[in-house]
Amino acid sequence: MSDYDELSAAAARIQLAAIDAFAEGGYQGTSTRQITKRLNMSATAMYPHFRSKEELLFAIALDGHHGLLARMRGVDDPERTCTERIGAVVRAFVEWQAEYHKLAKVVQFELNGLTPPHFRTIARIRRQTSDIISDIVRKGQAAGEFEVDDPDDVVLAISSLCVDVCRWFPSRRHKDPRRLGDVYASLVERMVR
Amino acid sequence: MSDYDELSAAAARIQLAAIDAFAEGGYQGTSTRQITKRLNMSATAMYPHFRSKEELLFAIALDGHHGLLARMRGVDDPERTCTERIGAVVRAFVEWQAEYHKLAKVVQFELNGLTPPHFRTIARIRRQTSDIISDIVRKGQAAGEFEVDDPDDVVLAISSLCVDVCRWFPSRRHKDPRRLGDVYASLVERMVR
Repeated sequence: MSDYDELSAAAARIQLAAIDAFAEGGYQGTSTRQITKRLNMSATAMYPHFRSKEELLFAIALDGHHGLLARMRGVDDPERTCTERIGAVVRAFVEWQAEYHKLAKVVQFELNGLTPPHFRTIARIRRQTSDIISDIVRKGQAAGEFEVDDPDDVVLAISSLCVDVCRWFPSRRHKDPRRLGDVYASLVERMVR
Repeated sequence: MSDYDELSAAAARIQLAAIDAFAEGGYQGTSTRQITKRLNMSATAMYPHFRSKEELLFAIALDGHHGLLARMRGVDDPERTCTERIGAVVRAFVEWQAEYHKLAKVVQFELNGLTPPHFRTIARIRRQTSDIISDIVRKGQAAGEFEVDDPDDVVLAISSLCVDVCRWFPSRRHKDPRRLGDVYASLVERMVR
């Protein structure tokens, strides 16, 4: 392992510990010390990797939002029908929120801990995510494949439905991200057709 | 004002200050001192009203959940069609989440701060809320008015859609709880018909 690899392995461990801590106690309710304590590390050992708790939250938010965006882009095939496309994208969104529900909780509910410039960076990635949904809904409407009153409201409702998964997943009833993805994809298809 | 009225007016002021504080900094991230400081009150002045921060959270959660349940019951008229009923109930749910978005945030996202017995009390009220939706969806399905694959999944999605409103409301686009209630009611009607 090079020095660089060791450094980034330590940073990854800190990030994972922070995700657990923030998901359980909230960003505001968690101190740097509480995070490093989970790793039997002194608080000062964090600073070569993240200069502050906010830098750590930003790194988590950045990775999380990029991960979700990549996953949704990866499944969206413009050659397919808009019905197939919206189904694939919703399935990917729901599965991601369910699989990484702790990370998603931090990514979705703790953004008010970010500095304004960091928040703006994250908001730009969020917009790209919702643009994927928006693009499909508008194309489907223009092609007469979808019947929607207001595309923006539909995009809002679809995003909202997917985001909320991380608040309650897993439940007694739903433990399988893929099954939940299928269920939500078919409910969303009904909303647009 | 009797002594009793003065006591309960003070308790109400503390509850309101706590809702603001919890909605902004999270339950775990807020100290009793930070709440009472908002009222220029000493921390010990809270104890005749609420014995702990958790008692305060429980009082807020109890009021909030009872308020939402009463609002939904108040608009549900079993004499009407299931389509009208689900529309009315969703409208009430969304409007409540939007109007009282700070209270709703505490009520929906901070429940893990409760003791297990208090959590169970709140869970019972939450069940009554979702039973209202469930009852309408099942009746609609039995009567052939609704066409749904699995009523439980539909109830979950409807609740989830409504709950998430408090995370983002108000937005640039949506500032009017009633208009949002109409939009979501019509999207939900499409999900069940």
